[in-house]
This record gives sequence, structure tokens and C-alpha cells, in this order.
Amino acid sequence: MITTTLHPGKDGAGVVRRTVLPGGLRVVTESMPTVRSVAVGMWVGIGSRDEAPEHTGASHFLEHLLFKGTPTRDALEISAAIEGIGGEINAFTAKEYTCYYARVLDEDLPLAVDVLADVITSSLITAEDVEAERGVILEEIAMHDDDPSDVVHEQFSAALYGDTPVGRPILGTVDSIKALSRDRIAEYYRRYYLPSHTVVAVAGNVDHERVVELVATAYERAGALGGDEQPIEPRLGGAEVPYLSGVTVLDRATEQANLVLGTAALSRNDDRRFALGVLNAVFGGGMSSRLFQEIREKRGLAYSAYSYTSAYSDTGQFGIYVGCLPPKIDEVLKVARAELAQLIAHGITEEEIVLGKGQMRGGLVLGLEDTGSRMSRLGKSELVHEKLMSVDEVLGRIEAVTLEEIQTVGRDILTRPMTLAVVGPYGDRDFSSALE
Amino acid sequence: MITTTLHPGKDGAGVVRRTVLPGGLRVVTESMPTVRSVAVGMWVGIGSRDEAPEHTGASHFLEHLLFKGTPTRDALEISAAIEGIGGEINAFTAKEYTCYYARVLDEDLPLAVDVLADVITSSLITAEDVEAERGVILEEIAMHDDDPSDVVHEQFSAALYGDTPVGRPILGTVDSIKALSRDRIAEYYRRYYLPSHTVVAVAGNVDHERVVELVATAYERAGALGGDEQPIEPRLGGAEVPYLSGVTVLDRATEQANLVLGTAALSRNDDRRFALGVLNAVFGGGMSSRLFQEIREKRGLAYSAYSYTSAYSDTGQFGIYVGCLPPKIDEVLKVARAELAQLIAHGITEEEIVLGKGQMRGGLVLGLEDTGSRMSRLGKSELVHEKLMSVDEVLGRIEAVTLEEIQTVGRDILTRPMTLAVVGPYGDRDFSSALE
Repeated sequence: MITTTLHPGKDGAGVVRRTVLPGGLRVVTESMPTVRSVAVGMWVGIGSRDEAPEHTGASHFLEHLLFKGTPTRDALEISAAIEGIGGEINAFTAKEYTCYYARVLDEDLPLAVDVLADVITSSLITAEDVEAERGVILEEIAMHDDDPSDVVHEQFSAALYGDTPVGRPILGTVDSIKALSRDRIAEYYRRYYLPSHTVVAVAGNVDHERVVELVATAYERAGALGGDEQPIEPRLGGAEVPYLSGVTVLDRATEQANLVLGTAALSRNDDRRFALGVLNAVFGGGMSSRLFQEIREKRGLAYSAYSYTSAYSDTGQFGIYVGCLPPKIDEVLKVARAELAQLIAHGITEEEIVLGKGQMRGGLVLGLEDTGSRMSRLGKSELVHEKLMSVDEVLGRIEAVTLEEIQTVGRDILTRPMTLAVVGPYGDRDFSSALE
Repeated sequence: MITTTLHPGKDGAGVVRRTVLPGGLRVVTESMPTVRSVAVGMWVGIGSRDEAPEHTGASHFLEHLLFKGTPTRDALEISAAIEGIGGEINAFTAKEYTCYYARVLDEDLPLAVDVLADVITSSLITAEDVEAERGVILEEIAMHDDDPSDVVHEQFSAALYGDTPVGRPILGTVDSIKALSRDRIAEYYRRYYLPSHTVVAVAGNVDHERVVELVATAYERAGALGGDEQPIEPRLGGAEVPYLSGVTVLDRATEQANLVLGTAALSRNDDRRFALGVLNAVFGGGMSSRLFQEIREKRGLAYSAYSYTSAYSDTGQFGIYVGCLPPKIDEVLKVARAELAQLIAHGITEEEIVLGKGQMRGGLVLGLEDTGSRMSRLGKSELVHEKLMSVDEVLGRIEAVTLEEIQTVGRDILTRPMTLAVVGPYGDRDFSSALE
């Protein structure tokens, strides 16, 4: 058992410590002495990207099943244990990891650790539960399908990456969910839900040694502690993932058209991500951004108009989203493309870089005031980053970004072949000229 | 200028102070010495309920226009001022109040107060801005119309209250928005956006006197401070609003059916609200609730299934929401109605009341850890509650709820005539038997 201090913090706050337990189970904590809540996350380094094509949706299906029962708790007892003390418990599945988390008052930390460790180590995954939950997941897919802004983002990813692990939907498809067998999911659970694949991240008014003790006790009770395995390496990614370009239109009788226009961008550990972050803030990050000002403030063409970046281990996305009444789409596309061209040609101004950096800086500091986001930073960092940067380090990297770096990364990313995804009442209208 | 201490707090935390400035402008602050962010809200005691039928949507239209410009700042300068320092600025319109807010680092408090006071006191509301923003609001209406879970809630309120101020949509309708004139909106602004109607609520690491000084300076600069007006009385409501019952079905080609089944419930200051809160927690408040267990866990009939309460000055709602594949709706309604009947007949158990109270207690404490929710509590309390209860007082009221009170309030509310709203691909199917 090796404990290291990743960050010394200041006056007892922001101290980050990490311990590796036998079997490769990692415990990382951050002290926040002035809060009463504590956030506990158990992060498993496996996600929808790790699924074979015929098992699309298995990670997320499994995530649901973990709340159905263990030898000592049924579904009601799992949720009631945490909700009865006023806490929340939930989980989410991403492409590269899956996270189970709870937020409770600090005095309830032992219970939260016990419940989460129980579901992670000792899920029963009965055939009966698989059948009931299959229905729930088909409902979840239908629910997302009724939200055109969800649909267009999914459609964009699918068009950008094609039928590949990173392009396929996290929830799976109706067909893949109907076909997944109990045995297949249980095998997936046994193979991947190991201490070596798991990070327990905790943020709040906590003592590291005490957390380690609670986690060790819970895992020991489940017979899940021990062995020589080392923690799996963070998922840093290899060669860049290839991407496609083109237009994809889904004909839907919606009131608004929804569109995403974008391309592949930077992977998660790319050094240029800070420059791209400032660029994105200025281009479409908020109400003061170019996109919002041109599309909404000046022309009243949309309610929601923004750009975004997202990142995985070996690729990322830069995209523009707009929702607008169907007849306005041509003007929206024209304005968006003109803004892209303007940025490629001239970069951003001295004034804008100050604005963009301020936006990123403040968003970071304000965004880390609650235990949940601090906990997430710890968990993700262990699984998918080279190392945990301190907040000051991140602030320094943002501050160091230059106008030239922004222009360079803008020219690299924004001149790439683009993909356009559209959902709206357009029949078989041809949008290919929108990319010319 | 009179300053009172509403709550003494403990060790400098949770001190709530209130000052009334000339003209009836109220400033209420709560100290949270251990956080770095500060939340500032300017609450105006006017909302969609105060609109004449032909001006439906005026409050919300006005809320949008306030971000368009003042004599000293255009739309870009308003948003850039706050976003450039990493803060957020936004607003929302409710039926009984409208709130403009910002969240910034504590050192940026003066700027946040200045920008918010500027838009509240000195908005230009130009004809050009009204036209551009009309387009944005029509987009917002279309966006909500594309979300069936939004639609069904709106439809439920409209069916429950009919064509009355509380039943009409906050956003207005396409027709009412197209018809609203610049003069009408500007008159609405002049009549209601007065210091006497406004509460400035601030929570964070702040000093009350300093906040009062900042607010007074900003209002003085705008020439908006002074006069003999007293603060408007809180909106406590009069006679209970009448309500309707029946079935309303909107035929839509959605993947999921969406339904709300419910009735009128308690107004905001009703003493029985704590009992109804515990009842709601147990009945449909979380994953451990009866509704979730019966509909989702046991039968896999839905992804989302919950009950809720909402409250206004003179009425409230209790409702059940479920989204499910269209063929499942009969079974869902059957289960939901059986659970209602069970609750009316037998109330809840000793075990469940502990669970329900724990859920409310923890939700309250965990929910008040951020500056934004503390600030909201202050602002709302001034405008719509008799007095600001301390958190301990609220906790005490929850703790005091008895099984008998829950059964009594359950029998009162749940036996009322019910309204059912359905959105789904049902053509002209008759659902009236669902209420028999």
C-alpha cells in the first residue's frame, strides 16, 4: 500500500492524496474542509468504446444493472440507503469510462462508500433483472429519440466517425439492446470491473487515511481486495482516429431545425487544448461570443447558438450547434460559415483573448466550488490524463496562450473537412452546397 | 434606511441582514465566509400572472429585452462585462416573479451589482431590439414545443387552470408574441420595474454594508433611488384559485408517450406543505419511491417516472409524470392509480416516513451549499413568503410531520378531481376511462 501526496494544498484545503491498495485499487481524495457534503465516485476505466459492435450498449446496460441488487441489498435497499439520508446516488456511462457516484453529508461517508463498493463488486445481474432493465433502456433510447437536439449530436458523431467504437451511441441501438444476453453482460462485468480498473475518488471534508480504511474494509468484505495486479495505465490514446466529412439529414416534422456543423479536433491530452479552449470561448462559448452575437443578438435567428469542444483519448470534436425555425437555416449556415472563415483568416483580437481567458479562468474556479466537480476531476484524471494538474497549473496554461497559438490551432482545426448534421422537416432536400 | 438582522447565523456564517433603501428598494444578504463565489440576484415581484390576456408573454419578452442595451452598455458589453471575468449572467421569468442574476468571484461583486442594476433601471427597449428579440422568443417557443415532456407539463397546467393568468404559458403564444408592441412592453417596464418592486439578494463572502453601498451607488447613478414608496407586500395570495378536471390528449408522432396525472394542491404558505413534501418524497420523489419502484424497477415500464409538487401564492399542483412507449400507457396509468388509491386508503408506513423526512432534510442541506441557491432563498422569501425561515426552522418543521398529517393531506389532495394530460401518437383515442 503506497500513499503519495499529489498536491500539498494550502492551509489544509486542496490537499490531494493517492493510495494504491492491493489488487491495484486506487483511492484519491481532495480535502475541502469548509463544506459539509462529500462526493464519492467509483470510476471504472471502461466505456462504450470498449464494446464489440454486436455488443453496443453493453457498458450502459451494465451500469443500470448494478443498481438492481447484490446479495445483501435489493434495488429498493440500494436507493433507499442513500436517499433516506438525503443523499443522491446515480451513475453515468461515457465512451471511455463509467462512473458511479453519491453525494452525502460528511457523517454519512461510510455508508456511501459501502453502498457503492457493494454494487461495484457484488452485483447479481439476474436474468429477471436483465429483462426488466432491457425495457427501461429501450425507454431511455426512445426518450432521447424524442429530443431533436440530442438526436442531432448523436447523428453528428455517427457521421464524423462512422460505424466505429467511438462513433457508435453509448446507449446502443434498439436492435443491439434487444440482442444483448445476460451472459454477455455478466462476462463483461467480470472481465472489467476489477480493482485494477477502478478509481475511488472522494472530495469533501474528509481525512485520506479514513477514506482508504473505509474503501479497504468494504472491498475486503466483498472478497475483492488483494492480488498482484497493478492499476491499469491511463487511456492516453494512440494514433489519431480517422474521421469523415459530408452531410447527413434526418427528415423530422419538428418545429425547429437542429444542426451541428463541425469536424474532428484535439484529443484530451493535446497541448494545444488550452488555445482551442480560448478560441472556442471567443467563437461560441457564451452570450458575448461571436456566434451568439451574430446569430441571436443581431439577427434574432435562434434561441440557442453555441460552439463546443469535446475530447477523447485519441480524437476530439469542434462543433457549432444551432436550433432555428426551418426557413432560417440557410441564413444561419451562411453566418456560421462566414464567422469560421473570418476566424481562419484573421484569428481573434487582443481584446477578445482577454475576454476568452477570463471566461475560461472564471469558469474553472467557479466550477470547482462544489464537491461533485472536484471529485470528477480526480477520477477522470487517474483514468484518462497523464497527471492531475493543479488548478493553478491549469490557470497558468490558460494565461500563457498567445494570439498566434490560437490562430495556428484555428487554422489547423477549422480548415479540416467539415461534417454537417441536420434534423428538421426538409424531406430529401440536398444540403451539400452548405459545405462548399 | 433601516437595517435589520433576520438571522444571527453562527460564527459569522449564515448571517442574514436586510436593508430598505429610499424608494422601497430592499437589499438582503447572507454571509458564506468560506466560499469564493458570490451570487447576486435582482428579483422583481412581477411575473406572467400579472399580464392581461392579450399581453401574454410580456414579462418574459421584457426579461429578454433587458439584456439588449442601456445608455452605457450595448448587448455585447452587458454579457462581455460578466463573461470576461469568468462569471455567468442570466435571468428567468416565473408566474409570480422575474429574476436577473449573476455569479462571479467575490472580488467582482461591484461589477456584477453595477451591470444588473444598469439593466434593471436603464434598459432602452428600442423598437429595433424588440423586433430582433421577437424572433428569438418565437424560436424559444418552437424549441419547447419540440420537447414533449415540456409540452405535457404546459398542457397539464392549461387544462388544470383553464385560460386564466396562472394557466397561461409564461412564454406566451406565437400569436401573443407576434402582437406585442414595443409601447406595451415599455409601459409594463415603467410601471413595474420600480425600486419598491425589487429585491437585491446576495449570498457569498460579502459584507452587508458594503453590498448596500454598492447597490445604492448603482441606483443613484441611474437616478432610480429615492422617494417615499414602501416595498410592495409579499404575494401571499387570497382565495383559492378554482381548478378544472378532465382529460386532454395531444396527438403527436413521438416515440414515447408523455403523461401528467394530477390535481390542484397546496399554496406556497400552506402549513401542510411539509406533510405534503414528505408524502411526495415517499410517493414519487426519488429512486426509492413507490412510483419509481413499481413502474420502473419492478415492471421496466418507463425510464422517467416521478411525482412532484409546485406552489404559487393561492394554489399549487401535485402531479405524476411518466414517459413510456405508447402501448404501455394503460398499464402505467393502472399502476399509478393503484398507488394513489393505496396511499389514500392506508397512508405511508413508519419506515417510509423516516425515509421521506431524511430525503427532504438532506436535500435541503445539500441543496444550500452553493451561493446560487442561498441567494434564491433570500429573494423568493421577500417576494412570496411571510418571512424567511431559518434552515433549522425548516428542518424542525419537516421533523415534526406525523403519519396522521400525511394521511390527512393525502386524503384531501389525492381524492380531488384529477386532470390527465397526454402527448403521444394516439389519434383521437378516448382516455376518459383513465379517470373513472
